[in-house]
Parts: sequence; structure tokens; C-alpha cells
Amino acid sequence: MSLTVDSPLLPDRLRDVLPPDAVLTDEASLAAHARDATPFPECGTPAAVVRPTTAEQVQAVLALAYELEVPVVPQGARTGVVGAAGAVDGCIVLSTVRMDRILQVDPGNRLARCEPGVTTAALNAAAAEHGLMYPPDPTSREVCTIGGNIATGAGGIRSAAYGATADHVLALDLVLPDGRRMRTGRGTVKGVAGYDLTRLVVGSEGTLAVVVGATLALRPARPPALALLAQFPSLTAAGDALAAIALAGHAPCVLELLDRATSEAVAGLGHPLLRPGGAATLVVESDTADPVRDLAAMKLLCKEAGADHVVTATTVQESRAIMEARLLAVPAVSRLAAALPGAPTPCVEDVAVPRFALPKLITTIEGIADHHGLPIFTTAHAGDGRVRPAVLFDGADAGQLARARQACEDIVAAALALGGTSTGTHGIGTLKRDWLARELDPAGLELHRGVKRLFDPKNLLNPGKVIEA
Amino acid sequence: MSLTVDSPLLPDRLRDVLPPDAVLTDEASLAAHARDATPFPECGTPAAVVRPTTAEQVQAVLALAYELEVPVVPQGARTGVVGAAGAVDGCIVLSTVRMDRILQVDPGNRLARCEPGVTTAALNAAAAEHGLMYPPDPTSREVCTIGGNIATGAGGIRSAAYGATADHVLALDLVLPDGRRMRTGRGTVKGVAGYDLTRLVVGSEGTLAVVVGATLALRPARPPALALLAQFPSLTAAGDALAAIALAGHAPCVLELLDRATSEAVAGLGHPLLRPGGAATLVVESDTADPVRDLAAMKLLCKEAGADHVVTATTVQESRAIMEARLLAVPAVSRLAAALPGAPTPCVEDVAVPRFALPKLITTIEGIADHHGLPIFTTAHAGDGRVRPAVLFDGADAGQLARARQACEDIVAAALALGGTSTGTHGIGTLKRDWLARELDPAGLELHRGVKRLFDPKNLLNPGKVIEA
Repeated sequence: MSLTVDSPLLPDRLRDVLPPDAVLTDEASLAAHARDATPFPECGTPAAVVRPTTAEQVQAVLALAYELEVPVVPQGARTGVVGAAGAVDGCIVLSTVRMDRILQVDPGNRLARCEPGVTTAALNAAAAEHGLMYPPDPTSREVCTIGGNIATGAGGIRSAAYGATADHVLALDLVLPDGRRMRTGRGTVKGVAGYDLTRLVVGSEGTLAVVVGATLALRPARPPALALLAQFPSLTAAGDALAAIALAGHAPCVLELLDRATSEAVAGLGHPLLRPGGAATLVVESDTADPVRDLAAMKLLCKEAGADHVVTATTVQESRAIMEARLLAVPAVSRLAAALPGAPTPCVEDVAVPRFALPKLITTIEGIADHHGLPIFTTAHAGDGRVRPAVLFDGADAGQLARARQACEDIVAAALALGGTSTGTHGIGTLKRDWLARELDPAGLELHRGVKRLFDPKNLLNPGKVIEA
Repeated sequence: MSLTVDSPLLPDRLRDVLPPDAVLTDEASLAAHARDATPFPECGTPAAVVRPTTAEQVQAVLALAYELEVPVVPQGARTGVVGAAGAVDGCIVLSTVRMDRILQVDPGNRLARCEPGVTTAALNAAAAEHGLMYPPDPTSREVCTIGGNIATGAGGIRSAAYGATADHVLALDLVLPDGRRMRTGRGTVKGVAGYDLTRLVVGSEGTLAVVVGATLALRPARPPALALLAQFPSLTAAGDALAAIALAGHAPCVLELLDRATSEAVAGLGHPLLRPGGAATLVVESDTADPVRDLAAMKLLCKEAGADHVVTATTVQESRAIMEARLLAVPAVSRLAAALPGAPTPCVEDVAVPRFALPKLITTIEGIADHHGLPIFTTAHAGDGRVRPAVLFDGADAGQLARARQACEDIVAAALALGGTSTGTHGIGTLKRDWLARELDPAGLELHRGVKRLFDPKNLLNPGKVIEA
């Protein structure tokens, strides 16, 4: 049985299986849940928003949707930027934000069990009470949810050192598109029984199953960290410093590169340590057992590579000021954007390349900015080669919009040409679907479609995201 | 077109697509490649053994097998112990040991590209030339191959600290059962484009695709390590020490537990540091920036938990002697076995439980040994809860064989009852297929079958391993 998009039956049927406050159909709620934080992609209008509080309610919703053949779009905090959580017309938006219980923090076994709506920050706070941490630290950590982190395989500023979400998911409690419950993985740190369906679901952007619970690995809280800031007269010099740091065997927990535009923007905010006029800035944080020694060694490498301004922190306060140079990148770019015609929202691209290709990619991006006449501000997680270029454009200006889309395409093409990937963190969603098809070979594409069909034969769960079924 | 088992056509057809020295059909070669190191499972007789040297040859073999509908069993060094590399009647055994080129060690990007036949030790030696390491260190590292490590998701004595194979595979070059080539993953440290088919293939025991190339993450060589040995009057005391070490936030790179029988066996070899009569032994290795301080802290925790004999190394030599107490476990047990009637080969079980359940599991295993009247020697990777009980039995004695099988079953059942898994390292193969079916829920079992069918619709690649199609 299949429903037309505006069938009045659907909300009634949902209210049959959910408490009244778990089904929203008012215009404002539907509009609020129509899209995530993506700047470009168009999205549809949901027929209903459901906000279950238990796994059984999620099962009831999916079983009903399966019977009625209505698409279901899972949502966490909607902080994603590639359209992976955008509604499709007539769908049920399934928000897991009210499933927000931390079920267990087990310090002896260093693991936590929680529901998908728990925020990354809340889980970390609970772990911290036991001297532990949950390492993935996406920028949106205060509001984004573990369910969303799992759906997107989220990373963070320290994930080159501590691993990303995929490295910390031991087991998943899932609801399949037909409403059946399934557990994957195990409660042990290591195990090799059967195919790794856990990792198949991590990063699948809600297209294979809905996460209703997770068992996550924790680790001891990291020791106090110290930071270093270095400015370079050229991108080449900064690249030489990055290479020297890597080849000397250092693995700092933060290794961030700011391009010229971003360095200028942060300096323009009046940051006390950042001098205007630099071509590139490195922000390094070390939490080894002897950060003073390690930062001193890295300072020397920066100087040898040509750094003309290096600040090494000796206190936690000074470190915080240095780290702020990186953290201010987003507000600094937003401030510049607000002053431009149309007060554009930056579109943050997301690609990754082998580490040593970073300077080359950033130089190419500077050329792309010039070519399209759009400001681009680039920061990079140099530890793992992830690059975040923020493209500024006025979405109300059709010409700028077209150039911005083309600039993003050019950036992805440049990353792939350097042996990289079209997405290091944000995912595919709808925005990068065509790129995924180009990144995979024909057999890979066919197997992606096959995996989707295997989990979701009716193509009802987050349809059109990641891969066209 | 389908062939009967003994068709003379098959070797001829193989010689059409492979160089003459790559096709073996003599009795001795067929017998040598019929089985891996598994003590129990029966295996079949191959029709031919092929030893390709290029990916294109692997493609030709699989395409031919697909056309003729002949099963293909991939093999590495055949050090596996669950029957995953055992022949099935009439199959082509596809050995990848001659594809043994290390194609690249890239110190700047900390990665290596190699063929599947490279041994784990050879890759490590190549990485060491650049001050790097490939962390997974299975016991058979001198002979086992990267292809086999990937097929089984191999770990090692330090994988709780440094990660196992799955954590280091960035990209795979694969041949699918129909002979098509497919690449998964990427050359970057992190990436989230599409479903994680790389991790799906890691640990799939050659049932989904044949690995013909891998891009692997390397890390800086570890600093010099120091070791500690502690003996305890009871398993409970050793468990208390393990708990205290974990709760204090230590993460030593080696944390090994030897049960009473193993401690006695090693002491019986005349190890200079191990006293006879202890109920349990801990072997700890630390390679933190200050191992002296960290080992001193852990020594105190061991004493507080009741250790009656603690040795802390201050030199690399002393550390080596301590580590030898663990490394001697296998030869010590083998020596005892050799003196028993029938000179039995130990059958090494492999389960994993949450770390805090270790003492309980080992106590249970001691009971299982008594119940079945068979000696069991247990060591455990206490860092990640993996337990290796070696059951001694005379395979020529039908009664002992039956009791040994039952003892292994009892051990797995005990691990699962404690929230563990039926295999922490060795895999499923044929030996634990029934256990996998019990460890998965119905939906998980169905999806396992679906994944197998998706990759291998004719059920030709390593049929009957992991899961019955």
C-alpha cells in the first residue's frame, strides 16, 4: 500500500503508534525540519516530523513507513552541510534528538553506551567525570549528536591524532528500514566475528539503518597541552615546515594550517599574536609527555623552514590564546562576509589529500578564488590532509551562485587530481553525489548500489542520499 | 559451463592464462596447499594450485573460475587456525605469496603500498628504514602475509595500544569473484566518501574479494620500551591489579596475563625471573615518554593488589628477559605437550571479553580444564580482553578429541555469556561458523548472507567459510 504525498492518513497512522507529542505536523515544525545546514541543495517538504523517545517507537515508525511505502529521513542536530539530512517531499522526518540518554559509562572497560540523541559534548562531559574522554571533536560538538556523528563518520580538529568516530564505535543497535532490530559489533575492544557491518553503517548517512544505540570506546583524558604558532612568508615555507615536522616523527595532536586570507582575517580581528601580512600560519598543539621539549623541536623546524614569527606557549593560558587563532577563523570569516554585499553565508568545502600535497592544493585553491572572483578562506587539518576552503558568495546573485558552485567543483577536482578524496569529513549527502560516482570505479559504484538495495530494498530510508538506488 | 571435480580441462585452461610455473598440479603441491594450521577441521583436495605474480593473473584466474564455476580458495602463508584457508574439493587454491613487492614506502605521508604476499616482518623492516613502523604484530609476523593479515583482520600483542590491521588499511586493490578489478578507500588518512567497503573486506577471510594490493598507514617507530613482571598468589589479585592499572589511566603497550598453568610451564623452562608456584603472572611493557615513572606507578598498583614478586626492568636487556616470559609461553606449552602421550599439538582457542571480565573467564576456563580432564594453558591480551587458551589433547584418541572440541565449545560459550565474542583474532573460517550464527541476531545473519551473495553471487570464492551462502 502506498500513500500520496499529502495523504491525511499518515499523521493519524503515526499517532496510532507514537505518543501525541512525538508527532508534529504544523507548518513551522515541517519547515524547521526540512533541511540541514547545507548552503546549496534544494530540499523537499516533510509530511510529518516524528520525535520518538524509544527504540521501539523507531521500529514502529519504520515498520509503518515500510507498510505505507513512505520515505523516512533520519535527522540529528541538522548541522550537516551536504544535504544528507534534508527532507524529501512527503517523507517522515525521524528526529532522534529526544533519545538522549547516556546509558552507561564504564571506566574499567573504557566504554560508554548511549542513545543517538546524546550530544558529543554531553558524552564527553560524562566521560570526563571518570577521567576519560570521547575523542572525536567536531566543530559543532556542543549541539551535534552521536547519532549524527555516526551517520557522517565525524572527525574533528584532533582526529588525526586520536581517531575519528569510526575508530570509536564498537557496537551499534540499529533499526532496519523494515522495522526490524539488529545489533552489530561487540562489547569488546577487538573482535573479528563476521563481516564488519558496524563500519558499513558508520558514515552511511542514514541510508542503511537508523542508529538507536551505540557502544563507544573511551580513552584516558589527554594530558595538559601546550601550543605553538608560526607564521611564514610563503606557503612553500609552511609546507616545508609541515614536511620537516612529519619526517622528524612528531605527531602533534593539533596541526592546523591557515592560508593567507584566513591569517589576514584573524589578524584583522585583532588577535594579539597573529601579525598581519603573513602568507600562511601554522597552529600546533602538543599533549605528549614533554610538550615543552617537543614544541621547542618543532619551533626550530619552523624557523629552519623560514618562519618569520614563532610564538611558543609555556602556560595553558598562552596556549589557549594560540589555539584561538585557529578557532577565530570561522567568526573572522563570518565577520568579513557580513560586510560584503548580500551578507553571504560561507560555503565550506571539504576535501582531503595526502599530507604532502597540501601546499600544492592550497596554492591551487588560491588560483581558483582569483579565477572566479570570489574570496576563499582555507584552513587545513594538516595532520591528516583535510582541507576546508570557505567560499564566500551572495546566494541571491545568480552569477555568484553559479561561480561558487563551479569553484567548489574545481576544488574537488583539484583534490582528486592530487590523489585525494571529495570529502574528508562532511560526507556525500546530495551535494557530492556526482563526485562519489566519479571517485568510485564501475564495480565500486555497482556494489554501493547493491549494499543500499540489500539493506533497503524499497529505497525508503533517506532516499537519494549518497547514491541513487 | 561447469566442470566435474577431476576434469583434466581445468589445469590446461589455467595454463592458457598463466605462466607454466604458476600452475601446480602435482600431488605434493596439492597436499601442501590443502589446509592451513587448523587442528580440527576437515578439508578438501584442490584440483590445482595457482601462484600468480600479478593482479592481471589473479583477474584471469578468477574470470576463468567464474566461467567454469570452479571454487577458488585464496591463501597467504596458511598460518590461520580456523580453517579459513582450507581447500574445498576440486577448488583452485590461489596463493598470493609470490606477489611480494613493496611498491612504495612514503615517509612524508606515512603510508606504504604493497602487494598481498609481502610478509608482515618485511613490511616492518622497510618501514623501519624510514624511522616508521607498521604496528600490527601477529605472532606469525615473520612468515604471515599482509594479504592474510587483511583477510583475517590480524592483531598482535600490542594491538590494544597501536591498533590492529583494520585500523591501518587505507585502501584496497581488489579482484572480485567475476574477475573485475575494484579499488576501495583512498590514499588519505581520513575520508568519508561512500560506504566503507574497505572495512567490509578486511576480516572477510577471502570470501568477498581477493586482495591484490593495499595502501597501509604507518606510524613513527615506537620509542624504547621498558618492562615489568609481576606474580600474584591468586587470579583475583592479578585481576585487581589489572583493574587498578586501567582505572589509573595507564595504557601500556603490552599487558599480558599468564594463568597458573602457563606461569608454571614457563618457570619450568628455567626462566630466570619467574618463580614457580604463582597463580598468575602479569607482563607489562611501557613505551611512554617516561616508562620508568609509569612502570614504578604500575609496580605500586601490583603490590597493592597483592603481588608477591615484582621485577621492574631498568635496561632494554632486562626488559627483553621479562618479555621473554610471555614469548616463552608457546614453546613451554609445546615442550610439555611433547612429553604427553601422542605428543599432541595444542589447539589454541581465541575469544574476547570486556577487560574486567578477564579473571572470571580465566577461572571458568580452569574449571573447564578440570571438567574435561585436559590441560589448558591460558594467556590473555589484557589490554583488549583477548584470551588465548591452548587446549592439549591427543588427536589420535577419539575420546580426547571429542573432549577437546567440547572444551573449546565451553570456552566460547563462557566468553559469550560474559558479553564477549567468539573470536578476537583468529576469525570464523569453518571452525567457528556455528558460533557466528549464534553470535549474530536473525537480521544480522540474513545481512551477512546478503553481503556474501552481493559480492559473490555464484558462491565461488572461499565457499563455506564465515557463513553458508
